[in-house]
This record gives sequence, structure tokens and C-alpha cells, in this order.
Amino acid sequence: MEHTTPEPRIGDAFGRTLQRCWAAGAACEITERDDGYISAADATRYFTPAEDLSELDQRAVALAQGRILDVGTGAGRHALALQQQGKDVLGLDPSPGAVAVARQRGVAAELGSIAHPPEGIGTFDTFLLLGNNLGLLQGEQAAPEVLRQLAALARPGALLLGTGMDPAGSDPEHTAYQDRNRARGRMPGQIRMRVRAGALATEWFDYLLLAPHELERLIRPSPWQRETIHEQGPKYLAVLRLR
Amino acid sequence: MEHTTPEPRIGDAFGRTLQRCWAAGAACEITERDDGYISAADATRYFTPAEDLSELDQRAVALAQGRILDVGTGAGRHALALQQQGKDVLGLDPSPGAVAVARQRGVAAELGSIAHPPEGIGTFDTFLLLGNNLGLLQGEQAAPEVLRQLAALARPGALLLGTGMDPAGSDPEHTAYQDRNRARGRMPGQIRMRVRAGALATEWFDYLLLAPHELERLIRPSPWQRETIHEQGPKYLAVLRLR
Repeated sequence: MEHTTPEPRIGDAFGRTLQRCWAAGAACEITERDDGYISAADATRYFTPAEDLSELDQRAVALAQGRILDVGTGAGRHALALQQQGKDVLGLDPSPGAVAVARQRGVAAELGSIAHPPEGIGTFDTFLLLGNNLGLLQGEQAAPEVLRQLAALARPGALLLGTGMDPAGSDPEHTAYQDRNRARGRMPGQIRMRVRAGALATEWFDYLLLAPHELERLIRPSPWQRETIHEQGPKYLAVLRLR
Repeated sequence: MEHTTPEPRIGDAFGRTLQRCWAAGAACEITERDDGYISAADATRYFTPAEDLSELDQRAVALAQGRILDVGTGAGRHALALQQQGKDVLGLDPSPGAVAVARQRGVAAELGSIAHPPEGIGTFDTFLLLGNNLGLLQGEQAAPEVLRQLAALARPGALLLGTGMDPAGSDPEHTAYQDRNRARGRMPGQIRMRVRAGALATEWFDYLLLAPHELERLIRPSPWQRETIHEQGPKYLAVLRLR
């Protein structure tokens, strides 16, 4: 009697969502956690105009200088804000749909990731991991390598500007997941998730919500050192500098 | 290596979505088809103010008279429009969360469905199946019984006002599903689906997209006869009257 839904086809569900949102002016982004928890949020946030960016994002945009790499650029909202200020920014995203949308919006964007940067991408003075993209550190295991890969593309004295979110909270559907993470030796805010859209799903990936003190612990042995952390409720902007 | 997500818990995912939207002013409603196709849409449409209702909906509101039953009232957008015109309407919904939201918005709403109406609900001069709720006919097998149950609650000369949508289209993700339906002896627009929200999912249910000519075929042997069908692109308002 029990009906089991077939697994979705692996594909660019994130890019499809951005493309629909760009074409229609509205879309919902569906994310699924590996315990079956599913949620959807307004995808127009990927298109926030420069003047409506959050205070933390605007601070990051102001601090960014030199040659800038916007990691996980999405639809390019931060890159566009930087370009409007005449700054030199390259957007990077592993989603072909995202890169297509970012380019249609006038962003210089390339397909790739920190682990797999495009050939000849060069080096940078500033790295942006905005839109909560400190999550790309993935977790305790992966973070050292990600931080090392960033440093390999860095010029002397480079800045790393990333926003993150403290996962602490009281929603039992989230705290139970965090407890399960702890029991399995994972960081509490380590979320195994994927994006879904229509018949498509991305591959599963780890995305990390971490408190500032956890971030400090992860960067201690890395080529990066903490300069400042601007907190705003559970959210924060971390300013790191290459040692 | 393949990760299979656990099945969600059965619960009032639709009501949860409406409650979140009512509390936060925004939410996405996630629907999943039994072939794994998943989509999400802006749930604020359940809260459309009377003056912004579609032309077909406004026509239905104008035609409704006497004692009115709004079947699948949701957050009560049509019931509120009727109440504002001084009309006598009762909202009916099987979702406890929907009924709670409708009541908070000032709608007289009861928990139940056409198959399981609340005790002593009485009889009605008008039935509304708006918001595409001709879909509640479910399919060829179930429709005669649904139409009979509606007639059992009807006063002489009662009206049934329902909106529907012709499923014909060219999106291969939908036409393939329709072809599969035909091959299994189902109506092409018969969608087996559920609503999902967080850890919750509703039970699977059939929801029917049908063309006007298919509706006419379904009602021919029923206690209802076609009065008019107002078409607007693939959408339409059917006006049926008790024989």
C-alpha cells in the first residue's frame, strides 16, 4: 500500500530555479535535508538589488578591494553591487543555470568552484563567501582543504569576507537534527542537503551553519587569520586575512 | 552509496503552510507528484483580497446566492469576499490548520469535506469549488460519488460553481505524466499528489485537471446539469445546476 516516490534525476535544480525566477520574476527554491525535512523559500532573494542588500552584505561590498572573486555567485547580486561601484569582480558558480542568469544580468561569471576553478583564473585580493556561503566550508573534515584552496588563489594580504549563521535555536525539528549530527561526530550545523526543482535534484552536499567560535576554531590551523567578526543576531560577517 | 531519504510524517502540511504564511506574510507551498516531480508556489495566493480575485472568481462570487458552502475554503479568500457582500457562507476544509487560519480571518469555517461533512451541516443553495477545486472530483471513478454527495446537501435548484483547468499543454514533464495516466486507464489530468512542509506530508490524494468537455462527460449521468462554462485561456468557471 505504501507508495515510495522515485528518486529525482540528478541535474541543475538550482540553476533551473534561478532561471525560472529570472524569467517569471518569482519562484520558490526547494531544499531537502537528508532526514526528509523539506522547505521552500522565495528565490527572489538571489536578485536583491544593491541598495536593498543587508547591512552585513553592504559592509562586505564596501570592504572588498582589488581583484575580487565572488564564490557561489548565484544570480550575481553581490557581484552586480560591486560592479556598480566600479570594482573588478569575477563571479564563480558550479551551476550552469546560475552562470547563465548572472551573465544575462551583466555579471562577469565563470563556471566552477573553489575545488575546481576554471583554467587560468589567476589570483585575487578579495574572496567573497556571501549569502551564508561560509557554509561552503562544509564541515570539520572538508574545511582545511577549502581554506587551503582559497589561499592558493590568494594574493599577498588577501581578504576573505564571508557571512554565516549560528545554528543554535529551539525549533525541535532542527535541534533533533543537530543532536543526530553530534552523535555521528559531525558538527551540529552540518546540513546534508540538496536543491530540488521539478524532476531534478542536485547531488547531495554538505552545507555548514556554524557559530563564530566554531569558525575561529576551523581557521586557527589554516592560512587565514581572523581580523574581525561583525555579528547581527544569529548572522555575522567574518573578515579574515591571509597570514 | 545511494542515499534514500526517509518518508515524511503524515500530517497537516497544507495547514502548516497556510499558518506560516498567515504568521509571516509569505510562504511557499510545496507539492509533490507521485512520479517525484516537485514544485513550490507562492502561498499568498490563498490570501488574495476580494478586489484582487481573478475575473472568473469574481463572477462566481457574484453568482453565489442563498446559503453558500465554500468547499475547500483554505484561508477563506472566497468566503471573505462573499461575507463582505453580506452573503451567507460557510467554509469547509479537511485541514485543521486551514480552518484555524480561516477563522482567524473572520470566516465561519468548519472542519470536514464533502465525503465527511460535519454533523448537522444542513443544506445549501450554492456550492463553491473555486481555486481550481473541480479538482476535488478526483477522476472518473470518484466523480459520480462526489457529485452525488454534493447533491445530497443541495436545496432544490441549487448552483454548483467550480473552476478548473485544462491540462493540455506541451511541457514534456507534464505530457509524459499524462501519457502514463492514459496508459493506466486514468484521466490524463488526474494528478496523484501530496503537499509537503518541513517534516510533514499530507496523505496522497488525486486532484483532477480536466477540460470542459471532460467535465461535461462526468456530469452527464449525475444530478447536476451544465448551465454555462465561462472559459478564459486554459481556465474556466463551470456553472452547474441541480436537475
